[in-house]
Amino acid sequence: MSRHPLPERVEIRDVGPRDGLQPEAPVSVADRIHLIDALQDAGVKRIEVAAFVSPRAVPAMAGAADVLTGLRRRPGVAYAALVPNLKGAELALAAGVDELTVTISVSEAYNQSNVKMSTAESEAVVAAVCARAGAVPVDAVVSCAFGSPYEGDIAPTRVAALAARLLASGCARITCADTTGMATPRRVDELVDATGPDIGLHLHDTRGTALVNAYAGLERGVRRFDTAVGGLGGSPFAAGAAGNLATEDLVALLDDLGVATGIDVEALVEVAALVAEMVDHPVPGRVATAGPLTRRAAPDR
Amino acid sequence: MSRHPLPERVEIRDVGPRDGLQPEAPVSVADRIHLIDALQDAGVKRIEVAAFVSPRAVPAMAGAADVLTGLRRRPGVAYAALVPNLKGAELALAAGVDELTVTISVSEAYNQSNVKMSTAESEAVVAAVCARAGAVPVDAVVSCAFGSPYEGDIAPTRVAALAARLLASGCARITCADTTGMATPRRVDELVDATGPDIGLHLHDTRGTALVNAYAGLERGVRRFDTAVGGLGGSPFAAGAAGNLATEDLVALLDDLGVATGIDVEALVEVAALVAEMVDHPVPGRVATAGPLTRRAAPDR
Repeated sequence: MSRHPLPERVEIRDVGPRDGLQPEAPVSVADRIHLIDALQDAGVKRIEVAAFVSPRAVPAMAGAADVLTGLRRRPGVAYAALVPNLKGAELALAAGVDELTVTISVSEAYNQSNVKMSTAESEAVVAAVCARAGAVPVDAVVSCAFGSPYEGDIAPTRVAALAARLLASGCARITCADTTGMATPRRVDELVDATGPDIGLHLHDTRGTALVNAYAGLERGVRRFDTAVGGLGGSPFAAGAAGNLATEDLVALLDDLGVATGIDVEALVEVAALVAEMVDHPVPGRVATAGPLTRRAAPDR
Repeated sequence: MSRHPLPERVEIRDVGPRDGLQPEAPVSVADRIHLIDALQDAGVKRIEVAAFVSPRAVPAMAGAADVLTGLRRRPGVAYAALVPNLKGAELALAAGVDELTVTISVSEAYNQSNVKMSTAESEAVVAAVCARAGAVPVDAVVSCAFGSPYEGDIAPTRVAALAARLLASGCARITCADTTGMATPRRVDELVDATGPDIGLHLHDTRGTALVNAYAGLERGVRRFDTAVGGLGGSPFAAGAAGNLATEDLVALLDDLGVATGIDVEALVEVAALVAEMVDHPVPGRVATAGPLTRRAAPDR
């Protein structure tokens, strides 16, 4: 239960072009490339840019290879893509992806509902993807890591055991996802006690707890976070699930804590405005709405 | 900079009937009494029920004495009212208030803008209110305690010095208010380092940080929080200010942490729905929207 000193630096992977846009009406490949460009201009060094899934099942992710081959690569930036299976991995590798993300649920019922496979069957898929990926790192995103809409609480030891098996089968990194907004600071503490701090946290704001959960993770030494600019996102398979932790909300918190990210919060607020235009509705991110602290509220009377 | 073990119990003052409703279109005295009733049914033991201010300046607070004399008193529940001056205090005391709240800003410019007085002049008003209040406790709510929209950062030592003077002049308690959503966990830490943990925190969610700031306060040993059911509220004098920390969002967090409040979160969610009807728009509280963790998301496919 020990608290670490806060890390000097954390790594933020912006999943906006993938997890953020996935539940939205399709945005063109050109606009998605423009969004990725804007994110890297803001200093984001790891971006989930596409999902190699069936465009019939997820129309918003159509053109994944075009996004990956069309984007303007910057040195030092890693471009990740989500792949559901070996075929997706092959397409993503052929398109020159830097990192693969695979999802697998620690909740059997959720995994069945999401991909019509048992968790063990998904583990075999992940192992096959890792074998094919070779030197390209695979990040296994464990969904429902803090609880399942079907099974309720998920014991942290179950997550830790699955994570260990995934690392043993070739995954480079584990990310624990709060798919349905069931994480709390206590559950973050207990999970990190079980897994150790070398995990990523992928937090959703369904119950308004994404930021406090990130803070609890930071206090436990977690140094990797998935966020989406503007706070877009939400699984179409999880009832009531709301958006991802907004990149700019986390960066604002980290800036104030003196934890480096290399990302410019003012630029992110501009990107959030851009993405709001693309999806044609306001984004839920709070700093994007209120302005960062550095931009003082104008005295109004 | 030491972290305390989390407190076993915290005290929540629901300011919804006052701070929550103040910026809204007026709600009838009968409905405000109904809201107070619902809050005490849910287990809330301290409620800010009214403001004895000019009904011309703040139409939503008209009928303050009627609210206070008309409500159904429960044993063990304290009914507080905000008073801006000695006249307000006299009216509130005549109506049988259990606790007076007074506001004073540590930001000179904000105090001038808000009440056309210097902070020193407001200190004299507070002292006069305390003298008149006798055995009725006065809680001084220090606004802009984490920053001012006019002056930017406010040094924690300035807040601590003002708090000490207010206690010396007869105030029973100090509450530090984040009027414009400028608090961060770091600023909460630094403020509590300067004041000690025996303060109340009154947090607004302008930048989505109300819950993480409350958590930071808890970790520093703070045991009193102002919240508003449904997350209603926001100062009409602060540009871009958003609602109060939602009572149900904090209670859900505390329940999960095993910190007692005596408040039933499911009942609070019902009260949030009631208040949404009263103000005729959705409330910003997140647990009220998504349902508490104890109410599992229904599997949707």
